Amino acid sequence: MSYVSSLQCSSCLRRYPPNRLLNLCTCGKPLLVRYDLDRIQKSVAPGSFLGRVQSMWRYHELLPVPRLDQAVSLGEGFTPLIEAARLARAIGLAKLWIKDESVNPTASFKARGLSAAVSMARLLRAQILTIPSAGNAAGALAAYAARAGMEAHIFMPRDVPPSNRIECEQSGAHVTLVDGLITDCGAIVAEKSRTEGWFDVSTLKEPYRIEGKKTLGLELAEQLGWRLPDVIIYPTGGGTGLIGMWKAFEEMEALGWIDSRRPRMVSVQAAGCAPIVEAFHAGKREADPWPDAGTIASGLRVPRAIGDFLMLDILRSSRGAAIAVSDDEMRRDVGLIARSEGLFVSPEGAATLSGARKLLESGFLSPQDEVVLFNTGSGLKYLHLFS
Amino acid sequence: MSYVSSLQCSSCLRRYPPNRLLNLCTCGKPLLVRYDLDRIQKSVAPGSFLGRVQSMWRYHELLPVPRLDQAVSLGEGFTPLIEAARLARAIGLAKLWIKDESVNPTASFKARGLSAAVSMARLLRAQILTIPSAGNAAGALAAYAARAGMEAHIFMPRDVPPSNRIECEQSGAHVTLVDGLITDCGAIVAEKSRTEGWFDVSTLKEPYRIEGKKTLGLELAEQLGWRLPDVIIYPTGGGTGLIGMWKAFEEMEALGWIDSRRPRMVSVQAAGCAPIVEAFHAGKREADPWPDAGTIASGLRVPRAIGDFLMLDILRSSRGAAIAVSDDEMRRDVGLIARSEGLFVSPEGAATLSGARKLLESGFLSPQDEVVLFNTGSGLKYLHLFS
Repeated sequence: MSYVSSLQCSSCLRRYPPNRLLNLCTCGKPLLVRYDLDRIQKSVAPGSFLGRVQSMWRYHELLPVPRLDQAVSLGEGFTPLIEAARLARAIGLAKLWIKDESVNPTASFKARGLSAAVSMARLLRAQILTIPSAGNAAGALAAYAARAGMEAHIFMPRDVPPSNRIECEQSGAHVTLVDGLITDCGAIVAEKSRTEGWFDVSTLKEPYRIEGKKTLGLELAEQLGWRLPDVIIYPTGGGTGLIGMWKAFEEMEALGWIDSRRPRMVSVQAAGCAPIVEAFHAGKREADPWPDAGTIASGLRVPRAIGDFLMLDILRSSRGAAIAVSDDEMRRDVGLIARSEGLFVSPEGAATLSGARKLLESGFLSPQDEVVLFNTGSGLKYLHLFS
Repeated sequence: MSYVSSLQCSSCLRRYPPNRLLNLCTCGKPLLVRYDLDRIQKSVAPGSFLGRVQSMWRYHELLPVPRLDQAVSLGEGFTPLIEAARLARAIGLAKLWIKDESVNPTASFKARGLSAAVSMARLLRAQILTIPSAGNAAGALAAYAARAGMEAHIFMPRDVPPSNRIECEQSGAHVTLVDGLITDCGAIVAEKSRTEGWFDVSTLKEPYRIEGKKTLGLELAEQLGWRLPDVIIYPTGGGTGLIGMWKAFEEMEALGWIDSRRPRMVSVQAAGCAPIVEAFHAGKREADPWPDAGTIASGLRVPRAIGDFLMLDILRSSRGAAIAVSDDEMRRDVGLIARSEGLFVSPEGAATLSGARKLLESGFLSPQDEVVLFNTGSGLKYLHLFS
């Protein structure tokens, strides 16, 4: 039995009944899943999760699928939160954690969102799924669609990492390489969903990927003993993880599982594609599209994100920050993290360390802050950057 | 407090006190860790593990490190056991599981053994570690040595997968590429350990990697509710996982956690390097070195294994089998597993499916058997095989 009460627009607040296959609100903004939190509170408490299934589905009352056996799962989530003491000393922090999302199925954090989205798409009888992707979301959709026995049509930039193309092809997805960026792919997907009736699982254009990503926040709280760190540093492309974690924090506070204190939320972007950083510093409510986006961190090559206004709200209300780092800094910090802790991270993951260094220099971070970095994927998906 | 009572030779049964840095027995055969099982039985029971740390260290009483905080860990082990219903139907089995080792740190099962070995090497004050490797063990040693702050010297075949070389270099290991196979690398490592005093962590030449691998068997029992499947199909290079699982089964039976029934154990090798298969069918107690070993499954390119006699004993006493499959069969089954279940497996992992098909044809497997396949690593480490 699902605890979902409605879908609600993140902007105009209009509500929709659940159990229908929906994309955006009629106003064009993302829909968010709302739960009957009173009923959840009567059913589960923080202690309930101990000994449950070792995946994000351990929090199934706070996820949209009515029954656990309806989840399309490969064991995603409940990834390790690794204390990085050597790295902390190297950069001058007392307490540093890395949430290691590389050990997800498909070797990236995208597994969470697509596990949730494909589960609901199957349940609500979508037939054919389609997605625009900078790379890792494509690999995850291909895998979960295969697991669900569904057809997937994937649109990626032509210069996507070879790992992403190969993983999609092996899983039997239909792959189209596009001369352009994820936003160009998104336009094709929107057109195809109109003309072919395919269901568009673009992040925040369907309501469930963010629910999967939300579990990052639930896990962080459980793994830290139902408290949160001082600062979270997150590499931001579409930003669904940032928005999802914040949603999780609000739900956990409403349930009485955590108090009202929040981490300062930091968005890290690539110098070659930093629309959120630019908008944050310019005091804008929404971000302008970034022209000529380019970075080795393919997951950060997102010139325009539909959830920009939600991200900017969170960064500001948490007294957080937004910071851009260069490709050279990311490359350097892939190496530093590997040599210090044995984790071969993605350039997006390394970007969070590059950001932390700069924020220590600027005084935004103090050496006493407890900081969590998110490594969103495995360096093994970026072998083309190394030789 | 450690429950280790002694190290015992697997062949001549001579015993050694624990807490010394040891390689082989004086007779030249592998040493195995023996525990005070009576004392363990008084401390833990199957129900004790529920809610413990989500890594192989949840079984720390059955592992050699005295205190949990002495483990050099990146969250290895406790990987998902995935029911593969679609794949089962495709090949004609009623119940098929895949133990997915690709979601370990360093994306392979080698993380388990090296986490245990590096933990003990650090504890027993080894200074510098060295290893011969077909690829994935090297990546794991590089990572755990970095995590432990130790120096690692790695010797691999020159034509090792690029992923393995890159992951080692990023983690700061000293990498030497050798014109030859893992056995040639092993000869260099043996020489270096004599002349330089480096500690040799070759599998089964030090006693703790097998303890890490043993947790595969503990997890299988816990994940199936403290029972075992009918058949285990395992891709066999050095064979440490096979030997380790069997050791776990014996320890669990002595503890009263499982009964005396055992799975039939199946070793799958590559047609281009099948010394165990050859010896099994020839009725030999040990295997002859395989000449001109060659296969795309780099982890199976092990022409001679020091634990050959242990593997052959297990295959026979479990009424198991040994079977060789071709590189083409592995390539085909990488695709079939990805399209059926969304798992992008290594060629070694795919080999277990190729083996299962043949064993169904031969009648060794019946459609009613409950079978577990081991996917030992991620297909992402073998991108060079796909284009």
